[in-house]
Amino acid sequence: MSVADSYILKLSCRNQPGIVAAVSTYLFQVGCNILDANQYDDNESGGFFMRLAFNRVSGGVSLEALRAGFESVAQRFDMHWTLRGRGERRKVLILVSKFDHCLVDLLYRRRIGELPMDVVAIVANHPRETYAHIEFEGAPFHYLPVTPETKAQQEAALLQLIQSTGAELVILARYMQILSDELSTRLVGACINIHHSFLPGFKGAKPYHQAHQRGVKLIGATAHYVNADLDEGPIIEQDVERISHGDTPEELVRKGRDIERRVLSRAVRYHLDDRVLVNGKRTVVFP
Amino acid sequence: MSVADSYILKLSCRNQPGIVAAVSTYLFQVGCNILDANQYDDNESGGFFMRLAFNRVSGGVSLEALRAGFESVAQRFDMHWTLRGRGERRKVLILVSKFDHCLVDLLYRRRIGELPMDVVAIVANHPRETYAHIEFEGAPFHYLPVTPETKAQQEAALLQLIQSTGAELVILARYMQILSDELSTRLVGACINIHHSFLPGFKGAKPYHQAHQRGVKLIGATAHYVNADLDEGPIIEQDVERISHGDTPEELVRKGRDIERRVLSRAVRYHLDDRVLVNGKRTVVFP
Amino acid sequence: MSVADSYILKLSCRNQPGIVAAVSTYLFQVGCNILDANQYDDNESGGFFMRLAFNRVSGGVSLEALRAGFESVAQRFDMHWTLRGRGERRKVLILVSKFDHCLVDLLYRRRIGELPMDVVAIVANHPRETYAHIEFEGAPFHYLPVTPETKAQQEAALLQLIQSTGAELVILARYMQILSDELSTRLVGACINIHHSFLPGFKGAKPYHQAHQRGVKLIGATAHYVNADLDEGPIIEQDVERISHGDTPEELVRKGRDIERRVLSRAVRYHLDDRVLVNGKRTVVFP
Amino acid sequence: MSVADSYILKLSCRNQPGIVAAVSTYLFQVGCNILDANQYDDNESGGFFMRLAFNRVSGGVSLEALRAGFESVAQRFDMHWTLRGRGERRKVLILVSKFDHCLVDLLYRRRIGELPMDVVAIVANHPRETYAHIEFEGAPFHYLPVTPETKAQQEAALLQLIQSTGAELVILARYMQILSDELSTRLVGACINIHHSFLPGFKGAKPYHQAHQRGVKLIGATAHYVNADLDEGPIIEQDVERISHGDTPEELVRKGRDIERRVLSRAVRYHLDDRVLVNGKRTVVFP
Repeated sequence: MSVADSYILKLSCRNQPGIVAAVSTYLFQVGCNILDANQYDDNESGGFFMRLAFNRVSGGVSLEALRAGFESVAQRFDMHWTLRGRGERRKVLILVSKFDHCLVDLLYRRRIGELPMDVVAIVANHPRETYAHIEFEGAPFHYLPVTPETKAQQEAALLQLIQSTGAELVILARYMQILSDELSTRLVGACINIHHSFLPGFKGAKPYHQAHQRGVKLIGATAHYVNADLDEGPIIEQDVERISHGDTPEELVRKGRDIERRVLSRAVRYHLDDRVLVNGKRTVVFP
Repeated sequence: MSVADSYILKLSCRNQPGIVAAVSTYLFQVGCNILDANQYDDNESGGFFMRLAFNRVSGGVSLEALRAGFESVAQRFDMHWTLRGRGERRKVLILVSKFDHCLVDLLYRRRIGELPMDVVAIVANHPRETYAHIEFEGAPFHYLPVTPETKAQQEAALLQLIQSTGAELVILARYMQILSDELSTRLVGACINIHHSFLPGFKGAKPYHQAHQRGVKLIGATAHYVNADLDEGPIIEQDVERISHGDTPEELVRKGRDIERRVLSRAVRYHLDDRVLVNGKRTVVFP
Repeated sequence: MSVADSYILKLSCRNQPGIVAAVSTYLFQVGCNILDANQYDDNESGGFFMRLAFNRVSGGVSLEALRAGFESVAQRFDMHWTLRGRGERRKVLILVSKFDHCLVDLLYRRRIGELPMDVVAIVANHPRETYAHIEFEGAPFHYLPVTPETKAQQEAALLQLIQSTGAELVILARYMQILSDELSTRLVGACINIHHSFLPGFKGAKPYHQAHQRGVKLIGATAHYVNADLDEGPIIEQDVERISHGDTPEELVRKGRDIERRVLSRAVRYHLDDRVLVNGKRTVVFP
Repeated sequence: MSVADSYILKLSCRNQPGIVAAVSTYLFQVGCNILDANQYDDNESGGFFMRLAFNRVSGGVSLEALRAGFESVAQRFDMHWTLRGRGERRKVLILVSKFDHCLVDLLYRRRIGELPMDVVAIVANHPRETYAHIEFEGAPFHYLPVTPETKAQQEAALLQLIQSTGAELVILARYMQILSDELSTRLVGACINIHHSFLPGFKGAKPYHQAHQRGVKLIGATAHYVNADLDEGPIIEQDVERISHGDTPEELVRKGRDIERRVLSRAVRYHLDDRVLVNGKRTVVFP
């Protein structure tokens, strides 16, 4: 069995009896075998969330036929759903500012096959020479410097680029510009940011300096979907590391780089692997 | 919905298409709603492992009726399975030697309702006064001192006690005697030990002293099911903590106590909550 | 060499050349050998912080004589300092409300000798029967229920108790009453609280419910010195644990108990071992 | 004060009274101010280990003069010692095989200034095209393929390269060849290897596959100085990550990459920052 014959079904709907039976019976009837199943019932909201990995036991039915066949099950329960080939490469656009550690890390993980994605554009508010040492391996670079005066215009260019490239995911890889409410809203569920603090602590600017001032004993980073509320989007992944009184803000920045790239790459992988479902202001992340 | 109306179904069998559909359809037909589902397919061994939490939507069917009805599904796929009421208290026998930190911790967690168990016996190879400060809260205490000469006889007494109390789980809470192969084999899957090292490192005696000698930078503990191969039983849970060159073996022992009680109590909770399935020399632990 | 012949010198002052030379030369001249040394220079504030463990090579000089002799070194650099016998038991008063996991843990660690302290009083705003299962081992219990009307009066009683028992440290072991500004100020540097969140996130009431609402992926606890600014005192220790979307607020409370008792007991041990120095709104903690 | 005016003194000797006084008095007399001090007394072996960071208060004395002046203190206590300018770049030679994640990570950290080193050679047993995507930024590449027949000859070439480049540190960045006893012995204390397991568990080949077979719940990596005993050299740094039953050996390899590069880069940084002292089969690492 190869990954090419495997599929990921991701769905959410109102919880009610019979969902699992209906879905699994459909898959059994069309000759598929469930490989991995995760389910979450949110008792507070009444939401039902599911991720299924499955493969075709015998050749037969195509992805299109599977989707068409599943439509009636989905309609019965009023589901939001996606069905994709496992390991299908997604088109990704990366935004970056001066600090390049997350960008370099994402490109490396893409290159060795750890992240199943095609980088259709790298967009920066600094010129190409800022990244002189980085091999983009064919990914087109776009320089979109932002000033208060040009912000609206550059966001329009960015949106145009997202559309023309067919980017399915936008990654803010330490992009230090705040997206407008309109753009944030258009990208809901399709734009991941890495914030360099353990949210909800130290929102806003210079979180490592804030952390130093407050004297915390651990620092962290947070990957979240972007929405119109700054630093309030649904959290996908977080991690922390121990620090000591002796660490200067500069040393927190250094330690933070490792946490940031680890947290961001995990969040991106979970997203690409269809493991993340948005549940109001929170996420469901199937491990 | 109360926990009293909820059930846990745990099962394993050879993997084949249609298992999920058969199980979920059965539950749907008898008016049950799946609350939580976990599944694991071991591609190497061909084993299929599943845990389902579900409740009855409308009163109706009893636990006995559910079991009887499921029997035909189970036979069709040749399943090993258990079906229990969620939060059903299990009978537990605890064995302990001189160090009482794990015993005290287990008793505390039982008292505040964190561990759904009844302690039907506490057995020690030290007399009751060794534990003078511990409130056993009604759990009968048995003093079974072990010497090379009395070992066989005391193990017979222990086995008799397990049977007469109806203990479903035996916990070696830092019990420093090695069980015989026969007793280990009889208790397979029903006896959890805490080993004070991060296995497979530092098997055998005085692991913290071994760790100090080797100069490792993290120490750990391992909870595993006991089998006839000493320190080789299927691992349920492990954890570690950072140490430094300045830690003496005595300080490792102190730090280790925290790791041991944390790891053991987690393993016991996973077991009592039917989250652990044995898969050859390993375990499947559904989080 | 026994612990009884060992001493801990803790000091802070403005940084200037020659401090280490002066201190170490004094100790050498009075026949003492430095066993462990830690030093921190705060380049921002210009503060100097030091902890030295040392012992007497040959019998000779008494603790009183050491103190008297060090006075001239201390005056020269205008030091704040303490000099104590290592392992000297400190008098501690513990405040507790309904949740007793931190209290039970502190008492256990005291009993097995992990925390060098004498519990001179246990004070609760719930009656003794709330803690019926806990063996206080001789520590006097005081029931001081607090209402808005009686708060001032009960704090006066508490302060009187602190003075009459000679308590050197007050531990708020999940004590759910807020101390008045006056009492907080009087106890500065001598009162440790455990807050059940990873500060500065989720200040105030019901932090685990706040954490659940926000959808964070790790929860934590914070031990800090109490001052007049609620939840803003200098942080001594913090730790976190991973959670998932599936954890209910109740499960966060359960996981939190383990973090709280671990973090609080570490902070208390660091304090009793003279490892913590206050540096403005932060702490220096020598490991 | 700039880093250029700062120094690191690292020393070890037999423990005896007066060492700290002698060293700190010397530094005070030549107009230096201690910024950071760490000390460790090994009560078992009687060894004394120290690291001091200091700077010159007023211009004056040169590094050479400091060294010459310190010689008499060092002789008095029969010290092993080094005295270096802080942030002084060390010459480093990196050995690599097929997996390039550690190499890429080290080069990146060097580029952004996180690791103060000059890469004087990159040596591989695979040809340059294996690393086609990696920008070596001027570091000379040497292809030294190893077969049983050519091993002695290639090690001679390697040793020649180490000498001709003046390399002070050799890093085995997932270099899959075992160095001969002779070469290992020549490089004692100057050669760091990353082993892809949490030693002493899973020595030898394919540790991730061994870990999968044993069913451990955490995997790790170990950075250690190389000596003639394979996988037995003094450990500098270790770290772990949680895994689950569902992780295939391939997924362990993926998770392991992150641990390996984190652990190796930390160990290299500690070494370059003169924080590591060898203490028999163990290390002292000052944080």
